[in-house]
Amino acid sequence: METHEVSPGGPASVVDWIVRKRDGGELDPEQIQQLIARFMQGEVTDYQLSAWLMAVFFQGLTLAETVALTQAMLHSGRQLTHPGNSRPKVDKHSTGGVGDKISLCLAPLVAACGAAVPMISGRGLGHTGGTLDKLEAIPGYQVRISAARFQSIVRRAGVSIIGQTKELAPADARIYALRDVTGTVASRPLIVASILSKKLAAGLDALVMDVKVGDGAFMRDRDSARALSQLLSRVGGQLGLPVRGLLTEMTSPIGHAIGNALEVREAIEVLQGAGPPVTRELTLALGTEMLRAAGLERQPAAARRRLERALSSGAGAECFARMIALHGGDARVVAEPWRLPRAPSRAAVLAPRAGYVSQIDARALGLLGVWLGAGRTRADQAVDPRVGIELCVQVGAHVEANEPLAHLHLATRRQSAAAAARALAAFTLSARRPSPLPCVLERWGPARG
Amino acid sequence: METHEVSPGGPASVVDWIVRKRDGGELDPEQIQQLIARFMQGEVTDYQLSAWLMAVFFQGLTLAETVALTQAMLHSGRQLTHPGNSRPKVDKHSTGGVGDKISLCLAPLVAACGAAVPMISGRGLGHTGGTLDKLEAIPGYQVRISAARFQSIVRRAGVSIIGQTKELAPADARIYALRDVTGTVASRPLIVASILSKKLAAGLDALVMDVKVGDGAFMRDRDSARALSQLLSRVGGQLGLPVRGLLTEMTSPIGHAIGNALEVREAIEVLQGAGPPVTRELTLALGTEMLRAAGLERQPAAARRRLERALSSGAGAECFARMIALHGGDARVVAEPWRLPRAPSRAAVLAPRAGYVSQIDARALGLLGVWLGAGRTRADQAVDPRVGIELCVQVGAHVEANEPLAHLHLATRRQSAAAAARALAAFTLSARRPSPLPCVLERWGPARG
Repeated sequence: METHEVSPGGPASVVDWIVRKRDGGELDPEQIQQLIARFMQGEVTDYQLSAWLMAVFFQGLTLAETVALTQAMLHSGRQLTHPGNSRPKVDKHSTGGVGDKISLCLAPLVAACGAAVPMISGRGLGHTGGTLDKLEAIPGYQVRISAARFQSIVRRAGVSIIGQTKELAPADARIYALRDVTGTVASRPLIVASILSKKLAAGLDALVMDVKVGDGAFMRDRDSARALSQLLSRVGGQLGLPVRGLLTEMTSPIGHAIGNALEVREAIEVLQGAGPPVTRELTLALGTEMLRAAGLERQPAAARRRLERALSSGAGAECFARMIALHGGDARVVAEPWRLPRAPSRAAVLAPRAGYVSQIDARALGLLGVWLGAGRTRADQAVDPRVGIELCVQVGAHVEANEPLAHLHLATRRQSAAAAARALAAFTLSARRPSPLPCVLERWGPARG
Repeated sequence: METHEVSPGGPASVVDWIVRKRDGGELDPEQIQQLIARFMQGEVTDYQLSAWLMAVFFQGLTLAETVALTQAMLHSGRQLTHPGNSRPKVDKHSTGGVGDKISLCLAPLVAACGAAVPMISGRGLGHTGGTLDKLEAIPGYQVRISAARFQSIVRRAGVSIIGQTKELAPADARIYALRDVTGTVASRPLIVASILSKKLAAGLDALVMDVKVGDGAFMRDRDSARALSQLLSRVGGQLGLPVRGLLTEMTSPIGHAIGNALEVREAIEVLQGAGPPVTRELTLALGTEMLRAAGLERQPAAARRRLERALSSGAGAECFARMIALHGGDARVVAEPWRLPRAPSRAAVLAPRAGYVSQIDARALGLLGVWLGAGRTRADQAVDPRVGIELCVQVGAHVEANEPLAHLHLATRRQSAAAAARALAAFTLSARRPSPLPCVLERWGPARG
């Protein structure tokens, strides 16, 4: 019979819920809660949830549905508290970029300014990197620790960066795994529920978002980035988590380094008061928002001064070293970055002619990084911490012919020619000086709860 | 990382195919073929296919994609031939209705006129019934037989009606089971591929469709019914299967009986030259199209005369009896319908006042039939062959107060009051005589291949 629409195969209501969403209707919070709870119990199958997710991709979710989904995912696990830790808990989350090592310097810096930063990060996938892979470039650093140890490190170092655990928002991990293989990642309400359920589970008081815009980012235009930001702050507001953030440029890579150990080294440079201007600027801009979100400073200028002091005093670097040590890592890398793993082979990418660097294609270099072994195309692949790309120039620089544009750090010399050719193709040289792009495009505040 | 879109978890291309369809793109025939072949091999998971099916629900399929999907499903199993059977092979398929017992009388009647009718039918689900459940009301009738036995019965009786086998278009069975529980039944190209892959596998020369329109049907408006008809004939034409058919009315039930044994009895009445006028008329109209599609008659009037002769001579009834016997059933039911199973209890539904019967709600009576046990809401439920509803009137009839509108055939007397109240609610009585609705609304011919 081809005429049948709503009924069998498991609880009848599940098909009704899929069809209602498919036809543009709204589910009430209780139904959303049931859907996720039954999915976690195995009563709603993977194929039913993925059909529902695809229907959501097309029809969206209302604000109330998004709030309910976030709550349902949050309540699939435990919600951390931080007993005995009176500091305001604040975290930063980025929608993902190329060369985005900001978390590594930002989290300890903000901790050094008096906030607690319980950060749960992800791994790299596709052209974008992941903070966990970067941390694991530090010899000995353990990203998988118990929730109790996480709480303890946050208390003692002011900051801990770990991977997602099975205790916190397990529904998010399972749903994300499904979305990843069913073409349903690119849905705004699903993205918001995924981010916020994890952040709420970590026991935050406030969240700062770095929403990246541009060809190297997930959101290619500002309107989508704004819509995502607005939804994050509205859903966060309804759930008692103030969310604010920045829209930042992601057309060229952030700073100089792409690749795990190389990015740790750049983050350390920033914590030592140096580093590429863009990396430093993003760290300060996001740090300013975090201190304000944490209620530690009201005025942006004051927040920025406090962060700059923590850089110049070395307090941020000390926090980083303390966190590394508590995670079992070799904290000496902070003072002696040469202890980080290094690739056995190098190749220079030379400018074929003189000109201004008018574009550096972040996406292309991100994919080249994957090809070199710094990233992965499948979730189960290992990464090589040593390899990557080190830019010698930034957009706007003038180069002479044969001046190096980048150095490649390679696992094997055999990759040199091919990698250099791919890297070169990511650069655009032009006769005229390009107009500079600001790295922070917009700032947005929390919505009312 | 929330930024990832296309990659891991199985062959990367599968996610690409989902995303391409999601974004309104077209897959080439080779990709569709691969998608279905890999699904049958377990490389493409149920949840990936259901996400793809939901994307198809929203984005549709092009004609070329629909043709490729039909072929891929057909080639998932074997394609029957009918060696040694020189008759033209023709079948009828209905999109499903309430009280639709037409296949039972039509198939043997057309066989009696010289065609071969290798018919693969389905079971009832929701408010519509299924031919297999009706046949199983005949004591001993086996709907599950081997393909070889099916071919042999078609050769010997001119007609055989069986259930879907694992040999013929197994991809259709698996995909339909997924669609049924993921809200992806109501997609025109998926419906067309499902119907035609099975029909092509049965080794037909031509197909006649009964596309039902109205509140009791899957298609509630004529435009959707026409669009489905057109797609069926275009896809059939491309695959060498001429498809023609009728658009028929499905607002009130067909004829008098709703319920398995009751419908078999009504079909036998038609084969004996009697039966309700609508049931007879639909049988003759669809039979006319089948004889024309089979190339046995060119002119509708000649086809109709040939069918009427096969009714009055008893040749159609003989074919039915022969088919029943070859399927292991008690062929005596054709001459002695009292041998069919009968419900132990009856209840009359009486007109509360005088008036014209202006509406009989097919959907409501179909659902009442399910409640009585004649149908099912879940694919794994058994049906009671004995129970159902027997209408005493048709739309347009005038009744006096307390005249019976219907008799209910019940498994238990305890259902009487509730069932009678529900049945009564399905009737609309009015003071004015309603204008009659034709049962055949439109006729459409095959598309060029």
